[in-house]
Amino acid sequence: MSTSVIPKSVNPDLQKERDGASFNSEEFAAWWAGGEEPLKFIRNVREYLYKDVDLNEMLQIQNMSHEDINEFSVRTSIDAAKKLRRLQEERNPGGEDYWPNLYDSREMWGLTPAGNPFGVMYVMVVKALQAQCTPEQYEDFGKRLERFEICGTYAQTELGHGTYLRGLETRADFDPKTDEFILNTPKISSYKFWPGGLGHASNYCLVMAQLYINNQSKGPHMFFVQVRDEETHEPMPGVHIGDIGKKMGFIGVNNGFLGMKDVRIPRTRMLMRHAKVNADGSYVSSPTNVLTYFAMVRTRCLIGRNSALILSAASTIAVRYSAVRRQSPINPKEPEPQIIDHVTQQLKLFPEIATSLAHRLASEYLWDMYEETLVDIGNGKYERLPELHSLSCALKVTSSMDSTAGIERLRLACGGHGYLTSSNLSNLYVFATAACTYEGENTVLLLQIGRFLMKSWNSALSGAPLAPTVSYLAEVQKNPEFGTWTGTWENMVKAMEYAAANKTRLAFKSLSNRLLRGESEGTAANHTGIELTQAAELHGRAFIFSSFTAEVTGPKSKNRSAAFNRVLENLLELYLVKETLNQLSNLLRFINLTDSDLTSLQDRLETVLTKLRPDAVAIVDGFDFNDQQLNSTLGAFDGNAYERIFDAALRNPMNQKSVPKSFHEHLKPFMKSNI
Amino acid sequence: MSTSVIPKSVNPDLQKERDGASFNSEEFAAWWAGGEEPLKFIRNVREYLYKDVDLNEMLQIQNMSHEDINEFSVRTSIDAAKKLRRLQEERNPGGEDYWPNLYDSREMWGLTPAGNPFGVMYVMVVKALQAQCTPEQYEDFGKRLERFEICGTYAQTELGHGTYLRGLETRADFDPKTDEFILNTPKISSYKFWPGGLGHASNYCLVMAQLYINNQSKGPHMFFVQVRDEETHEPMPGVHIGDIGKKMGFIGVNNGFLGMKDVRIPRTRMLMRHAKVNADGSYVSSPTNVLTYFAMVRTRCLIGRNSALILSAASTIAVRYSAVRRQSPINPKEPEPQIIDHVTQQLKLFPEIATSLAHRLASEYLWDMYEETLVDIGNGKYERLPELHSLSCALKVTSSMDSTAGIERLRLACGGHGYLTSSNLSNLYVFATAACTYEGENTVLLLQIGRFLMKSWNSALSGAPLAPTVSYLAEVQKNPEFGTWTGTWENMVKAMEYAAANKTRLAFKSLSNRLLRGESEGTAANHTGIELTQAAELHGRAFIFSSFTAEVTGPKSKNRSAAFNRVLENLLELYLVKETLNQLSNLLRFINLTDSDLTSLQDRLETVLTKLRPDAVAIVDGFDFNDQQLNSTLGAFDGNAYERIFDAALRNPMNQKSVPKSFHEHLKPFMKSNI
Repeated sequence: MSTSVIPKSVNPDLQKERDGASFNSEEFAAWWAGGEEPLKFIRNVREYLYKDVDLNEMLQIQNMSHEDINEFSVRTSIDAAKKLRRLQEERNPGGEDYWPNLYDSREMWGLTPAGNPFGVMYVMVVKALQAQCTPEQYEDFGKRLERFEICGTYAQTELGHGTYLRGLETRADFDPKTDEFILNTPKISSYKFWPGGLGHASNYCLVMAQLYINNQSKGPHMFFVQVRDEETHEPMPGVHIGDIGKKMGFIGVNNGFLGMKDVRIPRTRMLMRHAKVNADGSYVSSPTNVLTYFAMVRTRCLIGRNSALILSAASTIAVRYSAVRRQSPINPKEPEPQIIDHVTQQLKLFPEIATSLAHRLASEYLWDMYEETLVDIGNGKYERLPELHSLSCALKVTSSMDSTAGIERLRLACGGHGYLTSSNLSNLYVFATAACTYEGENTVLLLQIGRFLMKSWNSALSGAPLAPTVSYLAEVQKNPEFGTWTGTWENMVKAMEYAAANKTRLAFKSLSNRLLRGESEGTAANHTGIELTQAAELHGRAFIFSSFTAEVTGPKSKNRSAAFNRVLENLLELYLVKETLNQLSNLLRFINLTDSDLTSLQDRLETVLTKLRPDAVAIVDGFDFNDQQLNSTLGAFDGNAYERIFDAALRNPMNQKSVPKSFHEHLKPFMKSNI
Repeated sequence: MSTSVIPKSVNPDLQKERDGASFNSEEFAAWWAGGEEPLKFIRNVREYLYKDVDLNEMLQIQNMSHEDINEFSVRTSIDAAKKLRRLQEERNPGGEDYWPNLYDSREMWGLTPAGNPFGVMYVMVVKALQAQCTPEQYEDFGKRLERFEICGTYAQTELGHGTYLRGLETRADFDPKTDEFILNTPKISSYKFWPGGLGHASNYCLVMAQLYINNQSKGPHMFFVQVRDEETHEPMPGVHIGDIGKKMGFIGVNNGFLGMKDVRIPRTRMLMRHAKVNADGSYVSSPTNVLTYFAMVRTRCLIGRNSALILSAASTIAVRYSAVRRQSPINPKEPEPQIIDHVTQQLKLFPEIATSLAHRLASEYLWDMYEETLVDIGNGKYERLPELHSLSCALKVTSSMDSTAGIERLRLACGGHGYLTSSNLSNLYVFATAACTYEGENTVLLLQIGRFLMKSWNSALSGAPLAPTVSYLAEVQKNPEFGTWTGTWENMVKAMEYAAANKTRLAFKSLSNRLLRGESEGTAANHTGIELTQAAELHGRAFIFSSFTAEVTGPKSKNRSAAFNRVLENLLELYLVKETLNQLSNLLRFINLTDSDLTSLQDRLETVLTKLRPDAVAIVDGFDFNDQQLNSTLGAFDGNAYERIFDAALRNPMNQKSVPKSFHEHLKPFMKSNI
């Protein structure tokens, strides 16, 4: 099957959309990429990386067996690594612009559509080694990993334990006689389970284990353990290692399990920049856990950014498809319209575009705060850490939750064809939803945020100063009346903060009542869990309201054209209105909105959808994905959706012979059996 | 890998739950199955069907290639058919108790876990032939299909058309010279696309095509078309047929495409019980479209029932897993509790149990109404058809939407391990979500319900009588004040109806205003689309409120033990409270709830979760799934979740050799390249 039924031209319905937009999508693209220079850089890189990629092969990966998909992923991930290194040498030898900085970035998605088993290695392990190794250790094995002379992953989660670190069962006992640690996973539930790349794509592993000295627990520490032979790749003695089997997503990243029975490693393979075990068995505890803590903040900022990106990719696919599919006349005897002209369809599409922006901007705001705090920490100031931790959790939760739900709405908006794996929407979905669970399960994080809000509320009651992003709690305590709903953007931000503050107040009241009734702190917190998570969610939403509004209405708007600012204003308007309507029950409980206020919100929703209609395609063009990154028969730039769906179907392996084996072996004998 | 790490005993945490329940789960099981006799029958059948099923094989299917999965499905579906026929012969020769009635039923799920490519044949095609064939036609080919001498599917959807039947492009031109129809799919967009079993598991096909006589369109009609040779299974001349490739779910059902180029069939292969084409080319149109219409009602009732079942299966898995997983102490230094003791976890689990019941009971209420209407139709009375159509759409939409969202919540409640395909939760999810799109896309159906509500509202305004299930609209017109919120169950049902009626009123007002402003009916309806769908959704919810309350509080409660009634009352309480909270913004807009009313709802929610806690495992046991039907490492009856996860991982094909090919071919050379 080498000929293709796909036309070389752009679908006229899509071209018409592009010609009719009110603004220049290139201005959007530059803004979204962080400036014209970054956009140029990225496009250059992509041109180099993608010139020989066969989209036809990429569209077929879901048809392969689990084993073949994993082989495919190793191959494509190594190919991608080679390309990036070559680029590095050509353009910036000795630098880091390309390799490894771009490895496992969004720019690589289309090269490794079944995932990158070496992603964890660069996103987490190298970073952890840099932070936790002594200089000697980093020289000894950190650099080898950085140079990809060895490969490894980060193993913390066990079959029986995930979120609750102190419950981990893997243990590392110090043996002073041999100056070694002895690692063991004593039960099935103690097996390391889930690390990406662990299955068959690692020969080393950064293992989180309970340190024991003289059978005394010193809590969880990190150990660098060799799990496979460097030459043969056979498991090391005492190591039981393998792949955990198919998952919803990340289908080629080789998530693995690891059991250890008396696995011995030199004492110097415990990461000892902070805590230490000396040869005589004496233990020096870490002076601070700030850095570990801080690494999580960084990862959660990245999750927010990533969730926004995945949602913007799904939006691109669904919007383009909605512009080329025609269905169901609006008036009898009229031709069938582009489905993007149905208002109910617009309600499925455009809010997700707005949400992509909202989460992306909140992530950037948080990233700035992260960098400021980094400087503070350097100066020994740790005050903003709890706030930053809490806010990064809130953004992680909201962005993973909303992007997951949004992608699913977009997938459903594509009807039956959205259900094809070749639409890639299901793959984006399973990619996004995983973030609801990893790096802190969302409900657990919401409860942590809830506790932070309780503390902040209590501080405010006693007149203590609050961190800037929770200062609204004190304001609401001082002025318990919301005042008048005016429906301006500023007023809507204030309303969401007001709702968050009042939910916090109610949760605080419930919690206090339970404590007064004699419940322990833990029990009372558990019983107040529902209200705590609700307050926490609203806190996150209030933050996103505020950062999106600040970006659009703030001083940066002066750097943008009037036409582009109008588009951003429409997206902000849509975001604030739809989220206000989503959270209406929380608002109505505390704020008096009249029937005409509510009618006006409904009108605003319908009005802004109409305003966005002519610009929808140009906006998603501005997200600037290439066809390989989208990897979708529905969402290609040329809009030839039906031909691409059909072409991908024809190429699927089942169609390479006309009659399957099962006809002769099972179906025909049964039909002829005449029972 | 033949030894197993799975203990033979039940996990003590699960056994403790069973011992501590307040009621007998066998009473639940009999009630859920429709009585003790049906329960006994089903268990008997299952014992026979499942005795030789290898659960280990079933847990590995997602690791196979698309091609192998499809071979597996044909094999297992034929095996299942053989078993059922044998059972028929042994126990009730000549009857229909077993074959084909049970084929493709819930009881077979565990036998064909990748789906049944012959499902559509029995669920739809045989039924359609019975309804639409002349007796001669049914004798000629209908019976052959019924006896499985041939196999076939139903082909309506095209690449370019789904919901909008009149837009179908496949045409059947009558040729009076040869007394044949000539079938053509003139464009790529006209290809039939999606029918289950069409790919490689059908030799006949019931094709929906536009009938043309002398190039004049007579609208869509059904044609019985041979697509493959009965002996060789090769495609017939002019037939282009194949598999559409991998989808999110139904991974083994062989969904296919069909292109036709001048395919000729005898005139007698158009289904002619109602409309007719005579040999001279004269056309007799169908006297009524009631039956076609009515068949859809039946299918939608079945979807409601099925969605409830899938949700109950997912609930079973998640509840059992939550009883055996222990994580995160509630109070410091306490042991880690079963996660089902965390209140936030209860909020994820128990509402879905309640929703399963609510949807199941609504489906049964609707089914009774369907059967009454069937009698009415026999007597020439068609009055209740629009109501029944609208209500069946509402239930289809609500049950598919809620069960999809519910399964996903349950999956997330299982944390990382829920993401494993061996949990089977992802498979249940993709099975459930497909129902949001097929048999009428949900938004399209909501718009149809919305139009029915507009008509009903208008009738009520003019004093015309309304159908029983919309009579509340007239009552609200007569008594526009809700009165006092008391929070009793009856009051909550009334409140949901009141909200639905008021949303209907607002939509009617918006629609009327648009018509007054000169918009056409179609345009006005499109612009009012959002409000119409909102009103429609509430209408469905009000119906479910009412049917669930009627079952629990009505006369049937006398046939149940007091202990069991208490459980049902708790589930009703939970359902009404959580849905009221979910719809609070709609209620608060029209009904005055004080702050203490709202606090009381929150208290009721927390209270009923606590009440249900000791009975949760016994309730899901009452759903009476066997392990093969659940096909889940997390949800087995014995609760040995970790061992089952681990065992399934060990058996996955990637672990049958210690070093994969890609190490030698790609990974090692790169690591050694030292670039």
